[in-house]
Amino acid sequence: MKSTKAFAPATVANVSCGFDILGFAIDQMGDTVTLSEREKPGLEVLSIKGDGGKLPYESHKNTCSVAIQAMLDELGVNPGIEIRLEKGLPLGSGMGSSAASAVAALVAANELLGNPFQKNDLLPFAIAAEKAACGAGHADNVGPSLLGGFVLIRDYHPLDIIKLPVPDGLHCVLLHPHYELNTSDSRSVLRDQIPLKHATIQSGNVAGLIAGLFQADFQLISRSLRDVIAEPYRAVLIPGFYEVREAIKSAGAMGMGISGSGPTLFALCEGNEKISDIIEAAQQVYRSIGLEVDAYHSAINTRGAYIL
Amino acid sequence: MKSTKAFAPATVANVSCGFDILGFAIDQMGDTVTLSEREKPGLEVLSIKGDGGKLPYESHKNTCSVAIQAMLDELGVNPGIEIRLEKGLPLGSGMGSSAASAVAALVAANELLGNPFQKNDLLPFAIAAEKAACGAGHADNVGPSLLGGFVLIRDYHPLDIIKLPVPDGLHCVLLHPHYELNTSDSRSVLRDQIPLKHATIQSGNVAGLIAGLFQADFQLISRSLRDVIAEPYRAVLIPGFYEVREAIKSAGAMGMGISGSGPTLFALCEGNEKISDIIEAAQQVYRSIGLEVDAYHSAINTRGAYIL
Repeated sequence: MKSTKAFAPATVANVSCGFDILGFAIDQMGDTVTLSEREKPGLEVLSIKGDGGKLPYESHKNTCSVAIQAMLDELGVNPGIEIRLEKGLPLGSGMGSSAASAVAALVAANELLGNPFQKNDLLPFAIAAEKAACGAGHADNVGPSLLGGFVLIRDYHPLDIIKLPVPDGLHCVLLHPHYELNTSDSRSVLRDQIPLKHATIQSGNVAGLIAGLFQADFQLISRSLRDVIAEPYRAVLIPGFYEVREAIKSAGAMGMGISGSGPTLFALCEGNEKISDIIEAAQQVYRSIGLEVDAYHSAINTRGAYIL
Repeated sequence: MKSTKAFAPATVANVSCGFDILGFAIDQMGDTVTLSEREKPGLEVLSIKGDGGKLPYESHKNTCSVAIQAMLDELGVNPGIEIRLEKGLPLGSGMGSSAASAVAALVAANELLGNPFQKNDLLPFAIAAEKAACGAGHADNVGPSLLGGFVLIRDYHPLDIIKLPVPDGLHCVLLHPHYELNTSDSRSVLRDQIPLKHATIQSGNVAGLIAGLFQADFQLISRSLRDVIAEPYRAVLIPGFYEVREAIKSAGAMGMGISGSGPTLFALCEGNEKISDIIEAAQQVYRSIGLEVDAYHSAINTRGAYIL
């Protein structure tokens, strides 16, 4: 019987001023899904590694099987598929954990079934899985996990996804403090109404960030990494936010933001020379407030998910 | 005695989703300023043509002299300069009339004085003149009038202006109905507070528009020309707004918006083949509601202001 294996990268959503519309993919860190055909019809999750026993095996709850089922429903087929998931990134950290699982499952399933879909066309199934996992069908993690690079979600009705260029030498640092932050708390602190003035400031920065990516203008990207809509409210839920930002910007980071809804923070930097200084500066702040932190760094993944 | 003459183009500010941050320059239409040295120190406006007698001659009120004075103050000099202004665009129409006068005056004055400033460095003086003329120091008319093309005003503190690419074949149509609309009315209908959801929709469209300009993707530009923050409130002040939009989109326009704070409407289109159809469709709507309309069309000016 045939078997396929796919990798999908971790992602940063809500990229600062790109709140709710912009995400990017991280190299190296991600989830791996192995699928095997079997005779008995239906999906079965056979093993999950690296989740500390937290993820469900039931196929109507597991992100991988929910994503694959959405695809099978569209095709109107019901093959037998065994699913094995290896988590390569922490759960609930704001690095697109459920998105990476769903995308890896879909890319593997598409290959297993003889590629009935183009890569882009897998997105609606991944969004359906996100909806099942998180309650909201966001695309700003699944988009970049599938396609790689920076991905703009211009609209959902209909879905309009634009892959943006990644300047050579753009790197990111991820700081994952050992601190639990509930996504619903992070959502609930946001204001339903915001000042018009803040909306135009945000627009200016989003426009600057997009232009900076196209022009490979690191200074412009740096100036534009400013979120006045979500960050000021969410930062208070994240211990050390402003201290970490000041420390890592002094150490050479271009800018910093909250990854997804936190508590992980991301920083962007030009080249990788300053990365150890940036990480050391962040660790020093976290030590001073008594928090453990895992630090990762990587280039921006421009390839997205792929068959192994 | 030396003499210089400069032209500065008309402009469209508040480019749909680029409300308050994005403007572009129009080819052909614009203001011309002629400056002549004289022995007696100080600025004097000697003639104004094409304004129907509406613009002030007093040098502390006239946009040209206010702009030049701001430049002279920065240089700490007080030469004698005579100013002649020829208006080439209608006043108070939302096509950047005061901006074109200020910019043409500054470009001519800079040349007259031996170019003490780079072109970009003239912007703060033009903004000062806008403040004197309109009460608000906006840069989204003076920016594109000076520099040409699409210009992003990312921030004012400090001023951060980014010139964006213009796709080959992008044309615009301007529809100026004979209808008076007070800028302060147009400002007063805006909401101080807006839904967060609208701000993220606007962000997505701004990002799409910027990406579309860089990628020369006319379809993406077209999809992104949607303003949910200002247009819904301002459209009610503009007779026939929605009817004109429907008619010209059916006739092939990529999208439409309010130029500045109106009442002029702008449309963007791919190539110039459909322009006569678009103008005819608009004229038909205006006729049906009993309004005269002046229609202009042009490529996007990519050169900005220049010495004649």
